[in-house]
Amino acid sequence: MMEAAPIEAAHNDYRVDRWTNGIAVSATDPVAEEVPVALVYNGIAHAVMLATPQDLEDFAIGFSLSECIVERRDEIYDLEVAVRDNGIEIRIDVATARAFALRVHRRTMAGRTGCGLCGSESLDRFDRRSSVVRASAALSATALSLAQSQLGDMQSLFQLTGAVHAAAWCNVAGDIQLLREDVGRHNALDKLIGAVAAQGDGFGDGFVLMTSRASYEIVQKAASVGIAVVAAVSAPTGMAVRLAEAAGVTLIGFARGARHSVYSHPQRIH
Amino acid sequence: MMEAAPIEAAHNDYRVDRWTNGIAVSATDPVAEEVPVALVYNGIAHAVMLATPQDLEDFAIGFSLSECIVERRDEIYDLEVAVRDNGIEIRIDVATARAFALRVHRRTMAGRTGCGLCGSESLDRFDRRSSVVRASAALSATALSLAQSQLGDMQSLFQLTGAVHAAAWCNVAGDIQLLREDVGRHNALDKLIGAVAAQGDGFGDGFVLMTSRASYEIVQKAASVGIAVVAAVSAPTGMAVRLAEAAGVTLIGFARGARHSVYSHPQRIH
Repeated sequence: MMEAAPIEAAHNDYRVDRWTNGIAVSATDPVAEEVPVALVYNGIAHAVMLATPQDLEDFAIGFSLSECIVERRDEIYDLEVAVRDNGIEIRIDVATARAFALRVHRRTMAGRTGCGLCGSESLDRFDRRSSVVRASAALSATALSLAQSQLGDMQSLFQLTGAVHAAAWCNVAGDIQLLREDVGRHNALDKLIGAVAAQGDGFGDGFVLMTSRASYEIVQKAASVGIAVVAAVSAPTGMAVRLAEAAGVTLIGFARGARHSVYSHPQRIH
Repeated sequence: MMEAAPIEAAHNDYRVDRWTNGIAVSATDPVAEEVPVALVYNGIAHAVMLATPQDLEDFAIGFSLSECIVERRDEIYDLEVAVRDNGIEIRIDVATARAFALRVHRRTMAGRTGCGLCGSESLDRFDRRSSVVRASAALSATALSLAQSQLGDMQSLFQLTGAVHAAAWCNVAGDIQLLREDVGRHNALDKLIGAVAAQGDGFGDGFVLMTSRASYEIVQKAASVGIAVVAAVSAPTGMAVRLAEAAGVTLIGFARGARHSVYSHPQRIH
């Protein structure tokens, strides 16, 4: 590392030996940062996520919604991002009833985090029912390809570092409206959900395009806020397909150029 | 999905609409599975990870070592993998002193899982000191390229599904000795660590090659068991580079063909 890296920078320069065909050249590389980000609700520490320290207000709003800590954006009264020595703390003030419900449910959540199930202590505890998404959000295969073609140019942190995933919010015509990046794909999606919610828009008339694989927790977060279509550049997992089927989500994998594969609820794609 | 998927299968066939240039064809696709896997130590539920259900004994051994639940393989007395309705349970019997230590430390771990920090409740709790890796494990840039060239052919589940990461154990000549796959990159590394330990081999005279990015938890797990060199096909994160620097680990990113970038402890590469 060149010098003490500021903890709140999304990327920092690091010294590197770049080898090509057995010959090394010293250089500096921009490297994406991940930082422990603590989410504190009404004074109670809830979870620490490793996240890229940009768009953290979006992240806090999105996490609160996708983890069902609040049901609506306006139940979040205040947000404060504080840089500390060992990470970043986001203090979130939510409606008293929500904070109370969170405290009651903390025991049963037992360390549940944005990672989905991971963090639960036993198999009995991970069950979370998603309501079924009923939004129509019909879109054409052409719209999907159009969004895919816009993706690369908008991934500014990825272009610099090669280390981050992107989640993009697209209208049904296939134009990317918003994009967020993070070292964690579920964090990228939370940031995106927070950004869409901050604009006051609903999730019923658009779709999400992710640069990553489509895993269980991606579908779970999307379903929790009512996103009807999730398209991923890479493969889905079986558990993601089964949840998408049950939750009424259209799950699309291998969205690349003029190709994509629809794994559930294909009626939305024409 | 075609029919009820067996929970212990690494992949299952799912129905899919494959679109190319606006035309859909119905087909079936092999999709990688992720399953909740509960780790139960001496009767006490410890954590649930989403993992691909293959090589689960390797996984349990590797997780126990890389999370410092045991120090040596022979402190694990018995392992039993049991398929349940809602996931897979691995019952692990460890030395009584280890089980006691685990119980004492559970409060401070507060939901810590293989995801690294994520699951901790507050910033104060994630600190875990790694001992410094002193193994020499010197290797040539040519050996790195050789290992990289062997990787693709050995990723059998990835070839089928496109959805899993691989972790490979290579000798310093650059020959891949063992390879494990999982939807989670940290699980793939845990499976590999368990497989190397099960053979009774040490970690001092070889290196790890990962198909993924190199994030903090990858370096943390490697350092915990004494792996000196970690090479990743994709980018590192800044936190991973800083930990590698502090823990004496040589961290290599963008290991592709005849190129790679060395981010820490370059003295091991010649």
